[in-house]
Formats: sequence, C-alpha cells, structure tokens
Amino acid sequence: MTTMKRRNFLKGAGLAAAATSVAAPAIAQSSPEVRWRLTSSFPKSLDTIFGTAQTFAKYMADATDGKFQIQVFAPGEIVGGLQAMDAVENGSVECAHTPTYYYIGREPALGVATGLPFSLNARQSHSWWHFAGGKEIINEILGKYNCTSLVCGNSGAQMGGFFRKEINTVDDLKGLKFRIGGLGGQVLAKLGVVPQQVAPGDVYPALERGTLDAAEFVGPYDDEKLGFLKVAKYYYAPGFWEGGAMLHLVINKQKWDDLPKHYQAIMSNAAEAANNWMLAKYDAVNGQALRRMVGAGAELRTFSQPIMEASLKAANELYEELSAKNANFKKAYDSMVAYRADVLPWWQLNEYAFDTFMIRTRGRA
Amino acid sequence: MTTMKRRNFLKGAGLAAAATSVAAPAIAQSSPEVRWRLTSSFPKSLDTIFGTAQTFAKYMADATDGKFQIQVFAPGEIVGGLQAMDAVENGSVECAHTPTYYYIGREPALGVATGLPFSLNARQSHSWWHFAGGKEIINEILGKYNCTSLVCGNSGAQMGGFFRKEINTVDDLKGLKFRIGGLGGQVLAKLGVVPQQVAPGDVYPALERGTLDAAEFVGPYDDEKLGFLKVAKYYYAPGFWEGGAMLHLVINKQKWDDLPKHYQAIMSNAAEAANNWMLAKYDAVNGQALRRMVGAGAELRTFSQPIMEASLKAANELYEELSAKNANFKKAYDSMVAYRADVLPWWQLNEYAFDTFMIRTRGRA
Repeated sequence: MTTMKRRNFLKGAGLAAAATSVAAPAIAQSSPEVRWRLTSSFPKSLDTIFGTAQTFAKYMADATDGKFQIQVFAPGEIVGGLQAMDAVENGSVECAHTPTYYYIGREPALGVATGLPFSLNARQSHSWWHFAGGKEIINEILGKYNCTSLVCGNSGAQMGGFFRKEINTVDDLKGLKFRIGGLGGQVLAKLGVVPQQVAPGDVYPALERGTLDAAEFVGPYDDEKLGFLKVAKYYYAPGFWEGGAMLHLVINKQKWDDLPKHYQAIMSNAAEAANNWMLAKYDAVNGQALRRMVGAGAELRTFSQPIMEASLKAANELYEELSAKNANFKKAYDSMVAYRADVLPWWQLNEYAFDTFMIRTRGRA
Repeated sequence: MTTMKRRNFLKGAGLAAAATSVAAPAIAQSSPEVRWRLTSSFPKSLDTIFGTAQTFAKYMADATDGKFQIQVFAPGEIVGGLQAMDAVENGSVECAHTPTYYYIGREPALGVATGLPFSLNARQSHSWWHFAGGKEIINEILGKYNCTSLVCGNSGAQMGGFFRKEINTVDDLKGLKFRIGGLGGQVLAKLGVVPQQVAPGDVYPALERGTLDAAEFVGPYDDEKLGFLKVAKYYYAPGFWEGGAMLHLVINKQKWDDLPKHYQAIMSNAAEAANNWMLAKYDAVNGQALRRMVGAGAELRTFSQPIMEASLKAANELYEELSAKNANFKKAYDSMVAYRADVLPWWQLNEYAFDTFMIRTRGRA
C-alpha cells in the first residue's frame, strides 16, 4: 500500500533498457505503478462530498491509464473523520480528503485554509488560495506536520441549519443548544450559544427529545437526506460561518516529494477538476432539494441583521484574540483580510450588481 | 504537426514487445509523443486570457512528462481570431482557445455556450455545463462542424465599458456608436445603439475623434492597459451581456477521438485547471486595477434600472425570435433557462445573502 520507491524502480528499468533499443523503457521509468490510500472525513451517504474523493481517484486512474490507483476509505474504516490529517502525518495513509478546520486545536491557522466565519465566498477563496498567498502560507504551516495540500472541493455558501423555534433576536441565542463545530461554534458561544458536538446518527433523536435546539450540516441536497425537517422546521440562511468552505487533499509530504514530477502535475490538475465537480454538482442539485423541502413544510428564514452584526463583532474579537497569541494564525488571517479588501469593492461594483439584477428580475428573464 | 496515428504506433510497438519480456512496451504504446497547434482568439497583450491557453499547454506538457506538446499561436499567426473554429474544423490546427459566440453567424446556439446576455454567472455557467445538459447539447452541435470542446476559462462578470458621456435614460442609447460584439450588440441595437466592430488598435483614436462614443472589453485588469480612460472617463457596470463568459478549447473531433483515453482524461483535467487559473487570476487582479483606474480619474457608473430593464426586454425578444427560427438555439436556450429557474431562488436565499452581508459590512469585517 505504499508508493513504489522511484529509485528502486529506476534500477529495474535500467536493466530492461540494456536489453532493447526501443525508447519504451525510458517511458516506463517515469510512470511507475502507484497505489495510495485516501481516508475521507465524510460519510459515504453524502455522495457529493464523499463522491469528490472518489471522483478525484477516478481522475487519477483515468489520467495515468490505471497506473496510479487511489483507494478511498470512509471514516472509521482506517481512522475516524477527525483523525484524517493525523493519519497522513504519521504515514498510515498517503492522503486524506478533509476540511483542515478539523485541526484548529493543533493549528488555528488551518481554520483560515477552510474559510473563517465572515471571510470569503467560494470563488474568492479559490483566488486567495492560488493568487494571493493562501497556498504558500498554508502549505508552509502544513510542512510542520509532514504534510502538504491541494484544494479539492468547495461547498459554496452553506445553510445555517434547522432550528426548532424561530430565532429573532440576539437574546434568542442565549442557551441555545446548537450542533455546530469549529470556529463558527466559538463565535456563537460568545453570544451565549452552547455549541454541541453530536455524531450525525444521534442528531435526529436529540432534536426530537429537545436535547438539541438546532443543528447545521451543509446545504439542501445533503440536509434533505438527514430528515431533520420533521423535528425542526425552521431552515435558516445563510451559514455565515462557512461562506465557501474549501476542502483539501492533505498529502504526506514525503510521499508527495517521492512522486515523479508529472504525477504531481496530474494530481494538481485532477484536484482542480474534482474541486469543480463538487461545486458544480452542488450548484445543480441544491436548488431542486430546497424546493422539495419547502414543499415538505420547511419554513425558510434568514438570520436577522442584529444577529448577523453581533456574530460579526464576536468573530472579529475571536480573530483578534487568536492573532495575538498565534503568529501562524495572524499571518494567514492577515493575508485573507488583505485579499478581501481588494476584492470586495470590485465584487460590489460588478459581479454583485449582475447577480442582483438577475435575482430581482427572476421569473421575467 | 499532427497527432501520431495510434494504429501505426501500436504496430511498431508490437514488434518491440516481441523482443523483450518487460512490460515497458505496453506502457510506451499508450503514451505516444504528440504535437498539437492551438490558435488563440486573444492577443498576447491580454496575458490572462491569452495566458490561459499557455497555462493549459504547460499543464499538458507537465502532466505527460513533455510528451504532449501544444504550441500556442496568437491571432494572425495562423488564422485571425474570428476564424479559430474554422481552422479547427478544417484541420489546419488541432484546437483553438476561443469564445464560441464568435460563430453565432453560423450557429446561434454557440452564443449560449459562451453565455447569453442576462443568463448565468461564472459558477452557474460551469454547473450548467457539467450537470445540467450544457456539455451534451453544445458538443452534439459542434459535432456538425467536426469539433468537440472542453470549457477552458471564464472571465467572471465583465464590465460595461467606457463611455464618453453619461448614459442615464434609454433615450441616451439612441444613435450611440458603441464598440460591442455578438448578441450583446444585437440586444442593444433594438434600443437604438449602433454596434460597431473596431479592431482593438483602432479604438483609442476612434474614441478620441468621436467616431466611437463607447467601447467595452473585459474588466479592469485588461481595460486599464488599453488606456481608454484618457478619452472616455465614464466606466460602466455591469456588463450584463457577459455575466460569466465561458471560453472553450474547441478541438477537432477526429484528433480528439484519435487520442489515447488517458490523454483525453489528462486534457479534460488540464482544461478544468486552466479554467480555474483564469478566473482566480482575474479575481485577484481586477480589484487592484479598478482602484488604480479610479485614482487615475475613472468615474464609476452603473447602468440605470430602466436601461437594464429595457435591455432585458430586448434580449427576451431576441431569444424568442432566435428560438422560433433555430431549433438548436431553442434547445440550448431552454436548457439554460430551466437550470436558471432552479438555481436562482436557492442563490438568492443563501449565496447572495452571504455576499450581501459581506459587502454591506465591508471595512468592518
């Protein structure tokens, strides 16, 4: 299950080259057979997110004529979903498909890699990653953990989740038992929310019993499958804590460095293509799922401006605290903030003006 | 300069295989050396758009260890920018990087492939292409021209161009000599605009003399280089005729079919990666260019709602006319409209709500 060592392979190929004059062995040298294992942080039932890793693996096999095989494992088959990066770090697997914000306990800057509450949308995130310092900063930090990464998937803006009761004021958040993780949970905790970690299978009964007041997952297509609508009918937008969550293929640094350069190139392109597959699929299925859920009784709500404003203030406080005590976080955060300051005025002038008109006239266009 | 014929190559490789027992020749069979020519419709000076073809070619070479070489030509080196698809059709070149709307005179449906006025933004376009029928419909149509295609680039929403005078009412459009092409020009012609085809090098003097009243190109990063600001200071948003223009790699169908399957897979991924490179780069450089142009005296304006509404009405009339007389256009257009009806309510609820809050609070986030 490990990468074929290139050195050894070249040695064998050298012998073959001596036996024949065709150019073939030179080609064989550079395209070894490779088998990797990938552990995903997402359950198989979420076919878009788990499917992104499968799609990536298929792209790798197809592009190498079957020579680079990646076997995809669900959480629990090798390690749990929250231990995916650790398994890459210690070499148990070659790579993982995971949101790096799962590891903010070890390294807060990895929250910036996925996307912070109130940071960037999907397109802006991708641009920051490739053209505004994101990739360099995050992969330098990941190097400390014997890892590197490629962006490989984006959810788009996520929904705010299902709530048993309407939430109108900031006061309504006090004591609210909300299944929400990561920095989004830390932001809302400053406003009195009690963030809960509950395994997916346990959320439904917890909402039914009232042990939980609310739960957030991803967006309509995934949320519909979970069936929470039956016990918590208020469906809130937007999930301001994940405006465009980037997922990463986290790769063991040594295994990456051992790959022939053109396998690295194939993998970089396959990750970009799988990234687009995920976002494009969500953008094609979420609208229909939302309509079905509304038909089934979902009451759509948007968080009130006072709740959004108070959350923004809490987020900014949290980022100040984290920046003060963690230089890596500060470096990644400052880079994102500088990018955002450049992009938003331009977005407002043009991209947003186009979207606004299309939304305002929908049904007439 | 043509693809190595796979049949012939296999014949030669079969002889080599008989001479040795190593697996190498089997590998060599499937990874032939290939040299293609690509003609771009964009001048070298537009380093992001022309650069997308160069980036694609580099990705192909890197992913094949240099075996698949694509030489990129600027307009005029082989054929003119508007003849790129024709050159692919007749086999003068293997592929072209071009907006398919250049060929609406031959096939109006190709306007839908790039994106119609008031159709979809960049992300929605990509989703429609891959998951809502776009790719299948357009490539079936391109088959008639001995071509197939991959999406390979997106501009994001384009700007509305430079105007010598402010345009406030629909009446102000009457007689306006505007350098604008394609279906955007046809839409505005219904409101009295006189669309002009002017080569890039001739636009500046035409604006200075008053032979032109206005000219549109792409967005701030490209527009800044053209220097039109000195003779036409009103810079309008949004370019509602190109809300997220998709560029295509148009490929000779025979050459595509002749490629080994894994070269096709490598090319599909490289095109997706180059697509992201272009959009991410624009999203990183347009904001800064806009700020510089404002510093240099650009007066930002947005088209008034009556102008936008009248343009939408004119666009819908045009689409009705085209649908009535062209079945291919109708098929592609109806597919886009069905996708848009699904995606926009969802976009409004969530993605747009996130963007709205981020824009409203910018400077405070």
